[in-house]
Amino acid sequence: MAKPRIMVINGPNLNLLGTREPGIYGDKTLEQINQDIRALADELGVEVAFHQSNSEGELIQAVQSCLDSADAIIINPAAYTTTSVGLLDAIKAVNLPTVEVHLSNIHAREEFRRRSLIAPAAIGQICGFGPDSYLLALRALAARLGAATGS
Amino acid sequence: MAKPRIMVINGPNLNLLGTREPGIYGDKTLEQINQDIRALADELGVEVAFHQSNSEGELIQAVQSCLDSADAIIINPAAYTTTSVGLLDAIKAVNLPTVEVHLSNIHAREEFRRRSLIAPAAIGQICGFGPDSYLLALRALAARLGAATGS
Amino acid sequence: MAKPRIMVINGPNLNLLGTREPGIYGDKTLEQINQDIRALADELGVEVAFHQSNSEGELIQAVQSCLDSADAIIINPAAYTTTSVGLLDAIKAVNLPTVEVHLSNIHAREEFRRRSLIAPAAIGQICGFGPDSYLLALRALAARLGAATGS
Amino acid sequence: MAKPRIMVINGPNLNLLGTREPGIYGDKTLEQINQDIRALADELGVEVAFHQSNSEGELIQAVQSCLDSADAIIINPAAYTTTSVGLLDAIKAVNLPTVEVHLSNIHAREEFRRRSLIAPAAIGQICGFGPDSYLLALRALAARLGAATGS
Amino acid sequence: MAKPRIMVINGPNLNLLGTREPGIYGDKTLEQINQDIRALADELGVEVAFHQSNSEGELIQAVQSCLDSADAIIINPAAYTTTSVGLLDAIKAVNLPTVEVHLSNIHAREEFRRRSLIAPAAIGQICGFGPDSYLLALRALAARLGAATGS
Amino acid sequence: MAKPRIMVINGPNLNLLGTREPGIYGDKTLEQINQDIRALADELGVEVAFHQSNSEGELIQAVQSCLDSADAIIINPAAYTTTSVGLLDAIKAVNLPTVEVHLSNIHAREEFRRRSLIAPAAIGQICGFGPDSYLLALRALAARLGAATGS
Amino acid sequence: MAKPRIMVINGPNLNLLGTREPGIYGDKTLEQINQDIRALADELGVEVAFHQSNSEGELIQAVQSCLDSADAIIINPAAYTTTSVGLLDAIKAVNLPTVEVHLSNIHAREEFRRRSLIAPAAIGQICGFGPDSYLLALRALAARLGAATGS
Amino acid sequence: MAKPRIMVINGPNLNLLGTREPGIYGDKTLEQINQDIRALADELGVEVAFHQSNSEGELIQAVQSCLDSADAIIINPAAYTTTSVGLLDAIKAVNLPTVEVHLSNIHAREEFRRRSLIAPAAIGQICGFGPDSYLLALRALAARLGAATGS
Amino acid sequence: MAKPRIMVINGPNLNLLGTREPGIYGDKTLEQINQDIRALADELGVEVAFHQSNSEGELIQAVQSCLDSADAIIINPAAYTTTSVGLLDAIKAVNLPTVEVHLSNIHAREEFRRRSLIAPAAIGQICGFGPDSYLLALRALAARLGAATGS
Amino acid sequence: MAKPRIMVINGPNLNLLGTREPGIYGDKTLEQINQDIRALADELGVEVAFHQSNSEGELIQAVQSCLDSADAIIINPAAYTTTSVGLLDAIKAVNLPTVEVHLSNIHAREEFRRRSLIAPAAIGQICGFGPDSYLLALRALAARLGAATGS
Amino acid sequence: MAKPRIMVINGPNLNLLGTREPGIYGDKTLEQINQDIRALADELGVEVAFHQSNSEGELIQAVQSCLDSADAIIINPAAYTTTSVGLLDAIKAVNLPTVEVHLSNIHAREEFRRRSLIAPAAIGQICGFGPDSYLLALRALAARLGAATGS
Amino acid sequence: MAKPRIMVINGPNLNLLGTREPGIYGDKTLEQINQDIRALADELGVEVAFHQSNSEGELIQAVQSCLDSADAIIINPAAYTTTSVGLLDAIKAVNLPTVEVHLSNIHAREEFRRRSLIAPAAIGQICGFGPDSYLLALRALAARLGAATGS
Repeated sequence: MAKPRIMVINGPNLNLLGTREPGIYGDKTLEQINQDIRALADELGVEVAFHQSNSEGELIQAVQSCLDSADAIIINPAAYTTTSVGLLDAIKAVNLPTVEVHLSNIHAREEFRRRSLIAPAAIGQICGFGPDSYLLALRALAARLGAATGS
Repeated sequence: MAKPRIMVINGPNLNLLGTREPGIYGDKTLEQINQDIRALADELGVEVAFHQSNSEGELIQAVQSCLDSADAIIINPAAYTTTSVGLLDAIKAVNLPTVEVHLSNIHAREEFRRRSLIAPAAIGQICGFGPDSYLLALRALAARLGAATGS
Repeated sequence: MAKPRIMVINGPNLNLLGTREPGIYGDKTLEQINQDIRALADELGVEVAFHQSNSEGELIQAVQSCLDSADAIIINPAAYTTTSVGLLDAIKAVNLPTVEVHLSNIHAREEFRRRSLIAPAAIGQICGFGPDSYLLALRALAARLGAATGS
Repeated sequence: MAKPRIMVINGPNLNLLGTREPGIYGDKTLEQINQDIRALADELGVEVAFHQSNSEGELIQAVQSCLDSADAIIINPAAYTTTSVGLLDAIKAVNLPTVEVHLSNIHAREEFRRRSLIAPAAIGQICGFGPDSYLLALRALAARLGAATGS
Repeated sequence: MAKPRIMVINGPNLNLLGTREPGIYGDKTLEQINQDIRALADELGVEVAFHQSNSEGELIQAVQSCLDSADAIIINPAAYTTTSVGLLDAIKAVNLPTVEVHLSNIHAREEFRRRSLIAPAAIGQICGFGPDSYLLALRALAARLGAATGS
Repeated sequence: MAKPRIMVINGPNLNLLGTREPGIYGDKTLEQINQDIRALADELGVEVAFHQSNSEGELIQAVQSCLDSADAIIINPAAYTTTSVGLLDAIKAVNLPTVEVHLSNIHAREEFRRRSLIAPAAIGQICGFGPDSYLLALRALAARLGAATGS
Repeated sequence: MAKPRIMVINGPNLNLLGTREPGIYGDKTLEQINQDIRALADELGVEVAFHQSNSEGELIQAVQSCLDSADAIIINPAAYTTTSVGLLDAIKAVNLPTVEVHLSNIHAREEFRRRSLIAPAAIGQICGFGPDSYLLALRALAARLGAATGS
Repeated sequence: MAKPRIMVINGPNLNLLGTREPGIYGDKTLEQINQDIRALADELGVEVAFHQSNSEGELIQAVQSCLDSADAIIINPAAYTTTSVGLLDAIKAVNLPTVEVHLSNIHAREEFRRRSLIAPAAIGQICGFGPDSYLLALRALAARLGAATGS
Repeated sequence: MAKPRIMVINGPNLNLLGTREPGIYGDKTLEQINQDIRALADELGVEVAFHQSNSEGELIQAVQSCLDSADAIIINPAAYTTTSVGLLDAIKAVNLPTVEVHLSNIHAREEFRRRSLIAPAAIGQICGFGPDSYLLALRALAARLGAATGS
Repeated sequence: MAKPRIMVINGPNLNLLGTREPGIYGDKTLEQINQDIRALADELGVEVAFHQSNSEGELIQAVQSCLDSADAIIINPAAYTTTSVGLLDAIKAVNLPTVEVHLSNIHAREEFRRRSLIAPAAIGQICGFGPDSYLLALRALAARLGAATGS
Repeated sequence: MAKPRIMVINGPNLNLLGTREPGIYGDKTLEQINQDIRALADELGVEVAFHQSNSEGELIQAVQSCLDSADAIIINPAAYTTTSVGLLDAIKAVNLPTVEVHLSNIHAREEFRRRSLIAPAAIGQICGFGPDSYLLALRALAARLGAATGS
Repeated sequence: MAKPRIMVINGPNLNLLGTREPGIYGDKTLEQINQDIRALADELGVEVAFHQSNSEGELIQAVQSCLDSADAIIINPAAYTTTSVGLLDAIKAVNLPTVEVHLSNIHAREEFRRRSLIAPAAIGQICGFGPDSYLLALRALAARLGAATGS
């Protein structure tokens, strides 16, 4: 039986992780986070792929492309969280189980970061745990997709 | 005398038409809709061209390029309808007769889809008639441009 | 087979068309517009009837009377667009396909004219094309009702 | 070395789990969820204790009592999420790492359920995964507290 | 056949009735009102029981306990009317026919008393008739439960 | 001694009762409801009269005419509930005991139906009990007017 | 030279003047006020005519009819002041100098009475002087129309 | 018998009248307006005095000084209309009949000019008649103070 | 003559004083503050009693019990300041002179802490002086109750 | 050791105290209040000085002048409480301990009087105790400044 | 040819520059800033004059006096930026090119400082550059007035 | 010593400068503006580079790339000014001195253009001076970076 495939999509400025406002976002680079995700994916018996872009259009494209290539989505929409109707529509269109993650606790930041436009189309939201937000999301989806887990 | 040229611009996720939430958007693909538009354009004596993009920047570019290549615009801004000041500015800049169309009746959907930023720069808005929204817009523009119409 | 019957209902002050603020509403009288509608109705194979009133109560009555005498409704609620819960309820009660039209692009006018209370009960909304708004609505309904059309 | 102690606090009506609106909240009883939590706690090498109350005052008391008896808190404030300044103050006062959890995706429900007063005092928020929300929170805290984990 | 059982639940400060702001709430004590309710219940062939509390948690408990002991609920949530998500959730959870009553006409009082959080989970609301609000609610529920009525 | 006279005033679209959205409004016609009201009025020893209109002006007139012909008013303002300052002024002007009724629980419907402009001028409001709303209002007024009641 | 003609239009419930809430509106009847207006009109050399209606539609009609029969309008829109887009449109359509008057100082009453929808289409607003509000408006218009005045 | 004394108080920038935005405020200077007021005052048998200041503090002082020197006040608060709680308090403190006037129709101007903080403490408001606003106010006060009038 | 009796009521989390966020609330425990209050009460010739609770219901009860046992109330409603309609109602019901106190200056804290629901039922509010807020309130009430004071 | 110096600053219309709305503000004149303050100041071992002005600019100046002449400020900003950014800035600039006082309980008055712009720059706020508000503020500051107090 | 004259107007509390919150406003005194402005003015061939006041009325006067004595205005309205309709009106009245400046970046400060009432009457706004804000404004105006500049 | 490098970034539709709404934006092309900037940069001893894009993603990329290639940024975010959280995050991430510029005075335009999301991350904002806005920004940055300037 094929392993479940999970696409991890990261939005704008996350390519700067490790350099950008470490007090808020931590000092791991995106590549280091992705390696941690890959390691846990192996353990849980799922496949993972990654996409990062600063462009809303490319992120919409990345979500759309999951129709053929993924069974579930982990998305950190970053700056597009509160404004992108297009990402919302794309997630509703592909209709795959999706988890929204954030490194920081967006509910403890500026007012304009607290309200996600995208969350209503997701299964759930995990925020505030730094890179662990991704790992928790991966476990949640693996459990849901019935992957063979090591725990 | 040259035929009037009308550019039909479609925004994000409309490339998925026919697959995406058919209960709301119908089951015709964008290509099938475009063929219907072409057929009516022939009948009405106007030329049509098409552009679809998920990227706000590309859509702005598409509107700008009409300065040299079109006499009027039909635009379905989709998810950018309520947020894109850039599309609004581009439409005001090219200063061509523009009709805003929507497949669904946006005034009967979620609150955040009801208020178009772009409509004030358009001649008018047509929404709720599925693919016929485009055909009605084409007729409206053809009449305005003085094309030879079959009706 | 009987021709589909479409009732065209016009709200307050539209009886003054042709004299009232022609910069906004054009210089055709309501009677001239109605003649254009009749001409297109003949071409499309549908019957049309007309009702205009300045009274909200009479307009509600006019919508109610469509239960027995019409298959679809074109309504320009004019000044009652944004306030009449009664017209909204009447349209929902008769449950006939209804198109809301406006001569001007209400989305480009004063704030208080932009939000239609009635639109959620309609199939769709067409605004901004002057008297052509009615003609486009007629085509949309004729297509939906399966009338024999000339185009 | 003593095992880290985690207090799991549940707010009003969660004692009805398994009977109440199963379409939204699932069909596991609170006792069954607690057993799952205990099982994972054993695996992760942490101790867990449980408190449920319908009373805001008792919940405040439960949080306060963690000062002496817990190293971290998992709280599902349920109906008090959006109104209880008292729980917010208690969590800030005990100053222990706290994770806010919800069974349902509160960001996809009624407007008045979406904004947590308590979240700004928490490390993070996990919602939408049913009973798994608690398990994910337990993992997040165990990792943070440096517990010996089985994964 | 067993008589239908109706639980009458009263919120905070209603224990002071007869002494508190008689200009607004009248001069009958809660016990006198309950006697009137009992008298009408006898006449209508229903059983009634009573619970008053100043504590939100106890009121939630009282609603929950109706699962086993009542067929319908009359509730005057008093000061918790506009703020208690917990009572709303409890009423939805027990899923029994519930009528919300108020002694005063809350729609004629301060702004913050006018909007009931609980009303959407009730069959209906009766307010402004003083102690008669309870009697009217009793009649409404008795009629609905098919009790043998004296009128 | 003359029987107390109660005027029952119904607003727009209530003449369609029984045909209009029965899921919300039930399947009794207005005439059938009026007969039930008459029957209870006989029992309670009060006289009733009825007026229905779709016109705000006529409804204002109907309220004004109560000055000479009624001792109390039951009014279902329907669509004018939330907008008619004129009905509010008329009710304050005639200064008769007035009960506002609604068939449906307006507090559980669309936002714009929840806030009555008229309620502050009424004794109280009864909503959500279908045709029984009128009967409960009749009882409330009969009790207040000291009519000879059968219960 | 023909005397200037001024139409005095009164909205809903003003027919009750003298009986209705005299503490707010005074104890003169509308007929007595009209006689005072007629007396001043004679003195100022202008003609006056009067129209009162409780119906928005009739008031719109009354404004429209001024196109042929009046040189200026004094209007007390009463309850329609804050809601009638139709009266606003009618006044803009006839394009005659119009003065809005109110017996009471609307700026010192309930919030919802303070904001006139109609005032932007008027020359000015006079409120708070009881029946003298009409007389002041008459003087203002007479001065503007160049009537022969006694002062 | 002493003549009634009326103080005319003008707020900031009104000293520039005749030069400032004549399209809005007309081309009469404040001195010319004052002469017209004096002339009418003579005719009406009242005394008038004048004060203009750009300073809120001085205007408050001017109102306070009316306690000893005036029987009524005409005030054009100009730019302080919508912000000066101090003028409101002063007018309430001196407790003299006060009329608020404006040259322009403030209800037809920018949003922030439409809501007067001061109007609730005045008898009434007259706006939109240019310098005639003062004359109408003078007549209204003279009538109220029982002055011997020439009309 | 009996000494005036003053009840000091403290809301949720104040039992933690001295440990909780000392930067905001200071380092005195509630017991130490109460001793200071007792000392000043002796000096001023009044009796004091104390009640602290985390439960809104108990606090309501405490206010109600003052009917029999106190002549005035000092209340620090803490987290219930901005939400408890029940405490507001209780204070209005017992109708005793009440002073609202806060340790911190609530007007300099988060937005949601600034607006007290309870203040309108109090004589006045004292905030920002740490434990001295209670002492100042005690002086204010002692002066009002005519106690024999040492100053 | 020099006595601490406290400046008492009073805003607009407070010079009218004793005459102005005594129901709200009491019947003591400002001079009488100042004498009471002086008497308590002597007792507490502090020096006091006084300044009253109706002008915002002068009040700002008065606050600024405290830099050289005072150790603390008591300010009743009166009508400038809710609007004066300038007073806020001045208080922050001089950076002296400042107490805001009000005679009336501003939290029980009109909405627009409840929110102080200045309070965030003060130590605390005391309102509702009439002239005693000043005395309580004096005690609070004397205690803070370490003055020799008589109590 | 006469040199262009530019009036530099400074609002409340700017006389304290150099002492007041240097973290925000810097440590140069207003006199030092003015010297820098004079030096650049010499270089650019323009004349400058200065006015500072804490009083809104004096600032209005200062703007008005520019009618005779200046060709352009640089204004730092400080605390009056967001509230002074009077300064707005004065600037519109004198109709001279005006630049609004701020030392700090008002768009990065408290919400209530961000929205300038005055900016719409200015050519433009420069903020955030400390004393350089004035120098940049001087250059902008000098360029516009065609002064002989040294750069 | 290397010259300071300043990156000038222009947002959507600015490539159309000179053709687009010249009444608002002037008739210089972007290339002409850039030449003026280059000329002043030479004079001031700084290096400049330019980037324009209609795509939000590309603009974010352009800001990010400054990390390696620039010492400061001038950005005209155009249509993205009020919506782009992504640009805000990018500017905060690169942490270089940034000046926001606008050709037009955005504070005098439509409401939705007035509030910059980006300004809080900038040193300051300059708007309203047409192409000179860029030149003023260049001077401000050159001064800050200590460049050798010609003035």
